[in-house]
Amino acid sequence: MTAEIIAIGTELLLGDILNTNAQYLSRQLADMGISVYYQSVVGDNVDRLEKTIQNAMNRSSIIITTGGLGPTTDDLSKETIAKVLDLPLEEHEESKQRIIDIFNKMGKQMSSNNLKQAFIPKGAIVLDNDNGTAPGFIAKTENNIIIVLPGPPNEMVPMFEDKVKKELNKLNEGVIYSETLKLCGIGESKVAQLLEDVIENQSNPTIAPYAKNGEVHLRITAKTSDETVAIKLINEMKEKVSNVVGEYIYTSDDKTLEETLVSILQEKDLTLSIAESCTGGLLSGRIINCSGVSSVYKEGFITYSNEAKKKYLDVREDTLDKYGAVSEETAREMVEGLINNCKTSTAIAVTGIAGPTGGDEDKPVGLVYIGVYYNGNITVKRCNFSGNRQKIRDRAVVEGLIMLWNEVK
Amino acid sequence: MTAEIIAIGTELLLGDILNTNAQYLSRQLADMGISVYYQSVVGDNVDRLEKTIQNAMNRSSIIITTGGLGPTTDDLSKETIAKVLDLPLEEHEESKQRIIDIFNKMGKQMSSNNLKQAFIPKGAIVLDNDNGTAPGFIAKTENNIIIVLPGPPNEMVPMFEDKVKKELNKLNEGVIYSETLKLCGIGESKVAQLLEDVIENQSNPTIAPYAKNGEVHLRITAKTSDETVAIKLINEMKEKVSNVVGEYIYTSDDKTLEETLVSILQEKDLTLSIAESCTGGLLSGRIINCSGVSSVYKEGFITYSNEAKKKYLDVREDTLDKYGAVSEETAREMVEGLINNCKTSTAIAVTGIAGPTGGDEDKPVGLVYIGVYYNGNITVKRCNFSGNRQKIRDRAVVEGLIMLWNEVK
Repeated sequence: MTAEIIAIGTELLLGDILNTNAQYLSRQLADMGISVYYQSVVGDNVDRLEKTIQNAMNRSSIIITTGGLGPTTDDLSKETIAKVLDLPLEEHEESKQRIIDIFNKMGKQMSSNNLKQAFIPKGAIVLDNDNGTAPGFIAKTENNIIIVLPGPPNEMVPMFEDKVKKELNKLNEGVIYSETLKLCGIGESKVAQLLEDVIENQSNPTIAPYAKNGEVHLRITAKTSDETVAIKLINEMKEKVSNVVGEYIYTSDDKTLEETLVSILQEKDLTLSIAESCTGGLLSGRIINCSGVSSVYKEGFITYSNEAKKKYLDVREDTLDKYGAVSEETAREMVEGLINNCKTSTAIAVTGIAGPTGGDEDKPVGLVYIGVYYNGNITVKRCNFSGNRQKIRDRAVVEGLIMLWNEVK
Repeated sequence: MTAEIIAIGTELLLGDILNTNAQYLSRQLADMGISVYYQSVVGDNVDRLEKTIQNAMNRSSIIITTGGLGPTTDDLSKETIAKVLDLPLEEHEESKQRIIDIFNKMGKQMSSNNLKQAFIPKGAIVLDNDNGTAPGFIAKTENNIIIVLPGPPNEMVPMFEDKVKKELNKLNEGVIYSETLKLCGIGESKVAQLLEDVIENQSNPTIAPYAKNGEVHLRITAKTSDETVAIKLINEMKEKVSNVVGEYIYTSDDKTLEETLVSILQEKDLTLSIAESCTGGLLSGRIINCSGVSSVYKEGFITYSNEAKKKYLDVREDTLDKYGAVSEETAREMVEGLINNCKTSTAIAVTGIAGPTGGDEDKPVGLVYIGVYYNGNITVKRCNFSGNRQKIRDRAVVEGLIMLWNEVK
């Protein structure tokens, strides 16, 4: 069973928006064991869309489209697909009522255009839209299944998760069950090397490593006739993997690295303070993206200048003169300043050269010192990151998270 | 003249990477007045790639491919395209020498596979790769121009900029010249409404508004036989636009909003201090992404807790009790604290409810107060942002930048 994803919208062909829907759907289908052979993008143009759909029906059994379900006359996906399938459009009473209710709730005037969204090809399965006015649908022909979804990711993704997955799983004649182990502090090639035996001998479940923002994710996918068996297969694989790279796995949940870290800090009743120089707030910004972080994170400093390092963290003039602002000694004193001034039980301090200027032979661009504190100990690490200013700062943020996670885990 | 973009690579079909190349190329071609009718993605598979190329040659005059030029046996783009075009591959001596030189410089052993990258279809224009080992090429047939580029964006983009644009401009029989005005503090629909006359009567230059991260970009594109004329046309259009929405335009350069702001602060010899609650460092993080910001930005605070607001910014207990941490009064006192403690000439303070919890009827999720200080005046603005936690925080960061820019511009 092969699939094809068609994104519909002139704004994609103008380069105004990025086709994240295609990536999301491809990943989801791969997890379900369905091979995607093509992705296409076509504009809001009846002729070209018609040809694209016909071409797809000839070469792929599952076709998923996104976009073109809006209320304006530009939005032609449904009309064109119904034409290709030779199905009349019929008003769907329940969808009509949902649309009217949404407008009433917003207290907005509904234009008659909006009711165009309640028309569905005859016989199709209607997919309610819990986050917008355009319903999706699934139409089946002798050889094809055509799944038509709205374009905005915040409407498309929940519709796929809650409604489409179930339908696709029925086709699979089996259960696809997938779990992701997230690792940090180790590179993708090292993971692949350590797990070479496991990866080469995989069949069911399959296992695949992916590098992502300084982390490595290992996706384990099992396919069986029975959920209990699938879970058992996955757990066995997780144990095999854990035996080799267990120390690097920070979660098998859907959590991010910062959420995992904040959870541990919450559980252990720890507090965190942060001082940042080159990362300039990005590390705190990422931690504070965790909802409920207020029990953990009290205060932080952006000490970009030497004056600020002295004033708020009591870094000694002498240290700055002798070793420089980017040095192990300064990083250590920044951490000490956090401990003394914030009475915190954990701390992270970052000082480095993000470039493009400011580096020299001794201290090149990309040199970053990161200090962490936990349980009475300060650890300072010297890092050499590559890339542009933004990339060096992002890598330093990830490394700071990893270092503290390593201490408190 | 219509174009089609084909991205080649199984990793795209697995959803492992996002097809940013298609967006970049679409945008570039739109700027040059070339219409992109299709984007496709196909895996590293000879049969399917062959069919995709043939299909594209039948329907589009310009075809741009990205990816599949690597040294491994998986990388089949060049071989397959040469086969479709019925051209033999020939070793290109200069490219061979470049590859050998690159390996020598890195001090790395070259595998014989790498020399596969020096083969080019007979008669094609070779595009040197200044950032990698795989050259690209342009092959012309009676009806088509096929432009074959490497997949990594850091190789593809410079190759397109430096080498491909020139070739495409030749086809255009004219000069395409494009400039972007960046606006902030106004929405896309408002810009479109105010400029309705200008937009409706456009022909040469064309003008198109795009919404982007809380900003609006206006792209002006002129097409003439002569660069001087193009620049004149663009300048006339810029003046027309400025007469209507000039107060919102922050740059016509390639600068970001934060770079524009930092430049103004540098020119006027001003300093900036920032205190953040719900944005938790993201605002400072964005400002500090500007290289050379050290003359402006000295210090900042992340005062997530009430204690930190009192300790570092002297926000009064009384104010927090009476009005709450998310209030105009608290935002104002946070700014005052920055002025007094940091002796700064400009300041921004942010306090808000980013959610998903913590909101109520009086103070809903998305309520953010932003205070700025310049030239003796403090201005506090009440904002109501929508979206999830991340989006509310991002919008608050942009609003903080806009507010200070409005004061100092």
